[in-house]
Amino acid sequence: MQFAKVIGQVVSTRKEGKLEGLRLLIVDQLDEKLKPTGKTITSTDTVNARLDDIVLVCSSSSARMTSKTKGTSTDNSIVGIVETVSGKKRDWFKR
Amino acid sequence: MQFAKVIGQVVSTRKEGKLEGLRLLIVDQLDEKLKPTGKTITSTDTVNARLDDIVLVCSSSSARMTSKTKGTSTDNSIVGIVETVSGKKRDWFKR
Amino acid sequence: MQFAKVIGQVVSTRKEGKLEGLRLLIVDQLDEKLKPTGKTITSTDTVNARLDDIVLVCSSSSARMTSKTKGTSTDNSIVGIVETVSGKKRDWFKR
Amino acid sequence: MQFAKVIGQVVSTRKEGKLEGLRLLIVDQLDEKLKPTGKTITSTDTVNARLDDIVLVCSSSSARMTSKTKGTSTDNSIVGIVETVSGKKRDWFKR
Amino acid sequence: MQFAKVIGQVVSTRKEGKLEGLRLLIVDQLDEKLKPTGKTITSTDTVNARLDDIVLVCSSSSARMTSKTKGTSTDNSIVGIVETVSGKKRDWFKR
Repeated sequence: MQFAKVIGQVVSTRKEGKLEGLRLLIVDQLDEKLKPTGKTITSTDTVNARLDDIVLVCSSSSARMTSKTKGTSTDNSIVGIVETVSGKKRDWFKR
Repeated sequence: MQFAKVIGQVVSTRKEGKLEGLRLLIVDQLDEKLKPTGKTITSTDTVNARLDDIVLVCSSSSARMTSKTKGTSTDNSIVGIVETVSGKKRDWFKR
Repeated sequence: MQFAKVIGQVVSTRKEGKLEGLRLLIVDQLDEKLKPTGKTITSTDTVNARLDDIVLVCSSSSARMTSKTKGTSTDNSIVGIVETVSGKKRDWFKR
Repeated sequence: MQFAKVIGQVVSTRKEGKLEGLRLLIVDQLDEKLKPTGKTITSTDTVNARLDDIVLVCSSSSARMTSKTKGTSTDNSIVGIVETVSGKKRDWFKR
Repeated sequence: MQFAKVIGQVVSTRKEGKLEGLRLLIVDQLDEKLKPTGKTITSTDTVNARLDDIVLVCSSSSARMTSKTKGTSTDNSIVGIVETVSGKKRDWFKR
């Protein structure tokens, strides 16, 4: 999974049937120190993430392995809200 | 998913059987501000997208998770027409 | 899918059982204007492509979604011969 | 698979249901000489890896092919602790 | 698939159960002229490849589509030994 920050939202009224009812969030991928990498993707949300939340994004077929996204045409899902990121000697991030 | 703009169409008369009847569109991938990234791909279409439409493209095995592309040899599908893209303070795109 | 040009062929006598009987072609990936990108891959062939043919290559698990490659250990398949590629105002390629 | 070194840990209290109980480790990908590549990812752990361990990380759908991660939304799993890495003439790494 | 050269071997005594008994080889990816690209990966072996062999490596879920790797957590498998690579006018490689 990759760290990412929620930075926006996408509205699509005409979309593939199984995506109906799923929130589509724009996330900015972060490195392990939680610095932006400048790479953004649109991700389905499975944990009610909000703007500015630091999240874990899962990609490829595993993005569908959640109760909300099963069988849908999503290739990226937010699967967790990050609480702490700890390195060897100290925390790199605390929510 | 990735934002993309429809810029062309591909005709292939001799193709793998299950692809018959599917439209093959060329899309230019866009960043979150909807600026072209210069990376283009050929994508199956599931929402009747037209030239210049801003769309959402889903890749890998998830591209097959639609009623139109199930079981076909496609690795990219257009799964939504983008209406609005909203950042923290304002809309980045409105159709 | 990606555009590609067939530039060579691979012979492998000792290979994984399910690959027996499949043609392995070397393709050079092309951009949407059909210019070489310099990235080459070895791809199974499902449409009897020939040297210099402009083809569509499908990757990842979708490469197995053809009658010829079902269940085989291929990660790229040629799934179509390109006839025309049309942009907004004109054809970029005609066979 | 890729070589990687365990450099940290992630805590996420609010996460997709099936990820409950799985350890999420941050790993730094290494080249074949075990030098850091600077690319980090968050990976589920299936072998009780510890900080500084040199491990093998498996990605994409194969990350779910373990008894611990089956059916979960993970796209990277630590699947082995590296003991030795041997080149043609000598060992590049010994634990 | 990608061309690669076998350059080493990995020993991992503590690994995910289903990987037991599989050989893990380090391969250096090659371009179509069989020149090293400098990108190395660890791959399961399904054809008894040896050091210096030029092989075909299959990635992602297709790496599991062999009798030896079915259901295992591998994301790259050696699926063939390369005998000849032929371009338009001549052979680029002969074993």
